[in-house]
Amino acid sequence: MKPLFCYVRNNFIPADQASLLIGDLSIQRGYGIFDFFKTLDHTPIFLDDHLDRLFHSAAQLRLPIGYTRETLKAILNELQQKNNIADSGIRITLTGGYSPDGYSLSEPNLIITQQPLLFPISAECPKPFRLVTWPYQRQLPETKTIDYLMAIWLQPYIRQHGADDVLYHHDGVISECPRYNFFLVTTDDTLVTPVRNMLKGITRKKILELAGTKLKTEERDISLEELPTAKEVFITSTGKHIVPVSHIDGIRIGEGPSRIGESPSAEPAPGPITQALNQWLYQLVMPNK
Amino acid sequence: MKPLFCYVRNNFIPADQASLLIGDLSIQRGYGIFDFFKTLDHTPIFLDDHLDRLFHSAAQLRLPIGYTRETLKAILNELQQKNNIADSGIRITLTGGYSPDGYSLSEPNLIITQQPLLFPISAECPKPFRLVTWPYQRQLPETKTIDYLMAIWLQPYIRQHGADDVLYHHDGVISECPRYNFFLVTTDDTLVTPVRNMLKGITRKKILELAGTKLKTEERDISLEELPTAKEVFITSTGKHIVPVSHIDGIRIGEGPSRIGESPSAEPAPGPITQALNQWLYQLVMPNK
Repeated sequence: MKPLFCYVRNNFIPADQASLLIGDLSIQRGYGIFDFFKTLDHTPIFLDDHLDRLFHSAAQLRLPIGYTRETLKAILNELQQKNNIADSGIRITLTGGYSPDGYSLSEPNLIITQQPLLFPISAECPKPFRLVTWPYQRQLPETKTIDYLMAIWLQPYIRQHGADDVLYHHDGVISECPRYNFFLVTTDDTLVTPVRNMLKGITRKKILELAGTKLKTEERDISLEELPTAKEVFITSTGKHIVPVSHIDGIRIGEGPSRIGESPSAEPAPGPITQALNQWLYQLVMPNK
Repeated sequence: MKPLFCYVRNNFIPADQASLLIGDLSIQRGYGIFDFFKTLDHTPIFLDDHLDRLFHSAAQLRLPIGYTRETLKAILNELQQKNNIADSGIRITLTGGYSPDGYSLSEPNLIITQQPLLFPISAECPKPFRLVTWPYQRQLPETKTIDYLMAIWLQPYIRQHGADDVLYHHDGVISECPRYNFFLVTTDDTLVTPVRNMLKGITRKKILELAGTKLKTEERDISLEELPTAKEVFITSTGKHIVPVSHIDGIRIGEGPSRIGESPSAEPAPGPITQALNQWLYQLVMPNK
């Protein structure tokens, strides 16, 4: 298989040889930011939104990118041409650089990698997720840092509870999943999503725009107590678009408690609003399909 | 200058060439732990305490070290012989490894580096620090993770407030500085240090042991409100032993408010208990001096 190229410290190099010296502040102190977007049919999706957020995250952590947006786009374009992957995920990472003392910021190291998309983007919703809740507030929540310490640490807890991912809350207010934004549909068909203390995803933004013309939408606090009353719940990400949520902490969403005699693995079908939003989003990114 | 050696992924290599592939989970997700100890006159100080904590941190983050304690000690010994630095700091870092998907744990990468001590260890206390407080609770606080995102992010805030470091509190209860434990001496000469939600330093442990034979000691919650009543405040670390604290949030510790006509930069001398503990600790690590 032809090795994929990546872009590291101003050079295109085979990704399996790309490295950073151990003095980098990501290795020493977990300090860095990133962003992630996809290409479909070789076309970057929502690229300017992602670059807006990348520049915002970089500024928040005092990490100068060292390129103008136009130069960065030219590099991204060249990387795509070298790798020639139609449907891909591209990750741009910026670290604290080679620190002289292992603590102070230095010139940031920029890494750009491209890989085939792990999951096909589809007009059909993927298999629903089960979530388990956990009390946690991400630090610098509106910045896309590389800090996933808690998310990775929680993996055994998630598996032990038969769940697919974790839903964070703080003082009983929902924020996000580690790599997804959270939405629910109320009994009066209002689409609601948290408004603070979480990363504002690009897919979240597009969903709110798509829904806004057809549904009532609210960005506001959602309490843990509100979850069992939801008609539909889903989570959103760049890589998967919309993932329906069937259960939270073992409570089935949308169709009341599990029925006697029902298999514990029974998954309700995604709700109609979840399905419709997923189709609209698919049409938005694949207008010719 | 002869390049220093380090130990990375089972090999001794020149430290200025040591690297990790960009798929490592420290670079991708900030996932890793470390420990740090010093050598004085070529002798590792409190090595078993540090290795106890290293193995504890590694287990907490599900990162198998891959060596027995004895093998690890042999590697440390060989590294010391190669570098031949009498007074040094040795850092052992363990990352989440080369993850196949950028999220799942893999075989950890072990890095051991040695450098000359940045600060001489002395029977005299170093120049006092000024601290500024900040509301923050470290995640997984009793594990020595590489997560210093908040500490590095706060550097401009610390400088803007004319301070040397930050003191974290949560709900008004003091925990620690990013790289130091916190102690205060009450008006009745009791030595007090936080008991929970912070990393338990090896120097902290030694100070409590040294003080316990001569002073009343307490491990308990310390509120923000208690700080101005302290007779003495100091912070402790492996690299610096005891650093007196002269001011917290601009309030002078130990001698009441700054006097009229006093220079804003005037630093009170370290208190007698701070000085005595520093001398006892110096005698403990340098018994022949």
